[in-house]
Amino acid sequence: MGSAADDFDETERRRRREADRPSSLVARFGDDQPLRLDGGALLSPWQIAYTTVGKLNADRSNAVLVCHALTGDQYVASPNPVTGKPGWWGLMVGPGRPVDTDRFFVICANVLGGCMGTTGPASTDPATGRPYGVDLPLITIPDMVRAQAALVESLGIDTLFAVVGGSMGGMQVLEWAAAYPERVFAAVPIATGARHSSQNIAFHEVGRQAVMADPDWCRGAYLEAGRSPRKGLAVARMAAHITYMSGQSLHAKFGRNLQDRERVTFGFEADFQIESYLRHQGMSFVDRFDANSYLYVTRAMDYFDLAAPHGGVLAHAFAGTRTRFCVASFTTDWLFPTTESKAVVHALNAAGANVSFVEIASDRGHDAFLLDEPELFATVRGFLTGAARARGIEGPAAPRIAGDAPPTQPAVKAVVQRGGGR
Amino acid sequence: MGSAADDFDETERRRRREADRPSSLVARFGDDQPLRLDGGALLSPWQIAYTTVGKLNADRSNAVLVCHALTGDQYVASPNPVTGKPGWWGLMVGPGRPVDTDRFFVICANVLGGCMGTTGPASTDPATGRPYGVDLPLITIPDMVRAQAALVESLGIDTLFAVVGGSMGGMQVLEWAAAYPERVFAAVPIATGARHSSQNIAFHEVGRQAVMADPDWCRGAYLEAGRSPRKGLAVARMAAHITYMSGQSLHAKFGRNLQDRERVTFGFEADFQIESYLRHQGMSFVDRFDANSYLYVTRAMDYFDLAAPHGGVLAHAFAGTRTRFCVASFTTDWLFPTTESKAVVHALNAAGANVSFVEIASDRGHDAFLLDEPELFATVRGFLTGAARARGIEGPAAPRIAGDAPPTQPAVKAVVQRGGGR
Repeated sequence: MGSAADDFDETERRRRREADRPSSLVARFGDDQPLRLDGGALLSPWQIAYTTVGKLNADRSNAVLVCHALTGDQYVASPNPVTGKPGWWGLMVGPGRPVDTDRFFVICANVLGGCMGTTGPASTDPATGRPYGVDLPLITIPDMVRAQAALVESLGIDTLFAVVGGSMGGMQVLEWAAAYPERVFAAVPIATGARHSSQNIAFHEVGRQAVMADPDWCRGAYLEAGRSPRKGLAVARMAAHITYMSGQSLHAKFGRNLQDRERVTFGFEADFQIESYLRHQGMSFVDRFDANSYLYVTRAMDYFDLAAPHGGVLAHAFAGTRTRFCVASFTTDWLFPTTESKAVVHALNAAGANVSFVEIASDRGHDAFLLDEPELFATVRGFLTGAARARGIEGPAAPRIAGDAPPTQPAVKAVVQRGGGR
Repeated sequence: MGSAADDFDETERRRRREADRPSSLVARFGDDQPLRLDGGALLSPWQIAYTTVGKLNADRSNAVLVCHALTGDQYVASPNPVTGKPGWWGLMVGPGRPVDTDRFFVICANVLGGCMGTTGPASTDPATGRPYGVDLPLITIPDMVRAQAALVESLGIDTLFAVVGGSMGGMQVLEWAAAYPERVFAAVPIATGARHSSQNIAFHEVGRQAVMADPDWCRGAYLEAGRSPRKGLAVARMAAHITYMSGQSLHAKFGRNLQDRERVTFGFEADFQIESYLRHQGMSFVDRFDANSYLYVTRAMDYFDLAAPHGGVLAHAFAGTRTRFCVASFTTDWLFPTTESKAVVHALNAAGANVSFVEIASDRGHDAFLLDEPELFATVRGFLTGAARARGIEGPAAPRIAGDAPPTQPAVKAVVQRGGGR
């Protein structure tokens, strides 16, 4: 399985095409506009794939950058061309949604190192005509943000009204606020932290070792070899997936329920629903994601430590900031527990920043940030509405009825798919 | 690596020899004494490898059975013949220790399905002359206990003074108390539960998929093929190892410290100490453990649900019991959190059992049960001393000074190795 090119799933074939020629918008930067990477290399040419929703207003003050998580992409509120699934944050972003595209101009870009059209290991290296593979220089969270900043600048936007994101997206939000304080009016980091913890690095390392142990990884050159480390990447995703859910939600959703059988089989089949579910998550992931991208993007998270370049003092990263912050965490998120958000809040307090913080009660673990969590929506909506007023951004022409799911869009809740966003 | 027999580490070669011809004592049961397995099969012939410490008293009333965890073995208090490391619970079991071998006769047997001399997938199938591999019927926790009961009976012991164990060992303790209440005077289940949770099954499934994804697993027939799924098993162990430690202990021990370097390498080497540590844990594990045994023993834990055969009412499993129980959990154990122990205690209360319970404050997660935890030692020592008095077992001839580390054995703390016990 997965050892010959003709085994590839049609989904995977579509995804491979997206790496160089994305279905979305794309900004290309030539040899005269190299991207400086933290590792020291200059990347050129390079490109960044993105989508936009809503309209940029006359004074270009209403742009909201949404940053995606580990395995997300630019299709925040529009169908993914590979999977055909709806946008990964349709509950949060859209007309009448908390990030209201009747009011804001939303930009969402695939991260550097990703596989959906922004330069990453699956992209063709113009110097060789072959995929970069692991010859692409390593990418960091600041690198991702630097690429986004170039995109935003190319769109003629000086200051973003807001930068919003969860998990790895939240890391980018924090990096944006620290690196470009004058270009971020408001920042909404959700379910995230200012550094990756030892336990989180450990889980990522397990995933990478699973990928690299797969002989079909071919030391990173599987695209040229016409192979795909599907089994290794599926194991990596399975392990990661456990960390996205809480023990409570696993217990509530699956417990010890058996899958399509009355009793255990006394064997190694997926007797339990949780096993069947995890196997499905692993197998469907490999179609839509590039294994080398998985290595790069997990590594970027591992390396992230916002305090490090500031002598280990996180508050210094935000010194003098005038950005207003809204920090949110979830009670059962053990990947980015509330303590990590509180560390950010304490640093912002120490820097004298304008910050509001909410810990939201949810039994859904880290995944909560992608799901239907009314308190999250109310928090983001309220914060952005207040900030928009302060920034002088006009509301939508016809104000909608209050509430998170406007009556014109009742179906969105039902069709939003889990898991595509991180 | 690991794809040819001559690549095998000397440690692995020693371990393979132990599967049929253990260095320890071994009880053999012939075709006239088959072992009935929960899956329906009769296993014969079969054998169980064990060690003993201390002396059985005249009325055979002082026997303590110690049950080992997932990847432990019978070498509870004596050097492991494969690794050369000291016994895995030397802090708990020995002269003057909480399980005092000056007073008690300690028996510890390798579990059924294990790889250190008790019949398991690495054992030679007498019907074919080849290793069983995955043709061995699946093993359950009750099967393991049934095998131990046959051993205990063969030693002429009617009633065990105590059964003691942590993690999977604790599951066996609970099963002993439920299946043979009249043969267990006292029971000490530590850091365990009466069933495996959905999250725990999930982690085990990841580990099994990692093993089975390794082409050197050869569908379970790697021993005959002269191969070894080292990479897959190492990934499985790495993932499991994270669950044995708490986020706090990982942070305290490793944090984001770099391994033998001043700065990150912008690559996929083990930059961080936690990565280096996990890789070491994975690699050293594969030498000392059989991959198929890992599949079997994890599956046994998954299947364990003591309440299930009692209509889902755990208290019924202990109806009428006269065994006295001492249940212990650790505050930061997220694999078997205190809630699981409390469920056992509530069931025991409902059954009117004599039970004491302690939740021990420790930052070491699940691993705490194997480590130097004075409150655990004091608890077990106090409980067993009281129970021994009630049972009329004489104390050691020359009473020792109170304390967990008697002055004659100061070195034991220093040489005990982590990780061998689970």
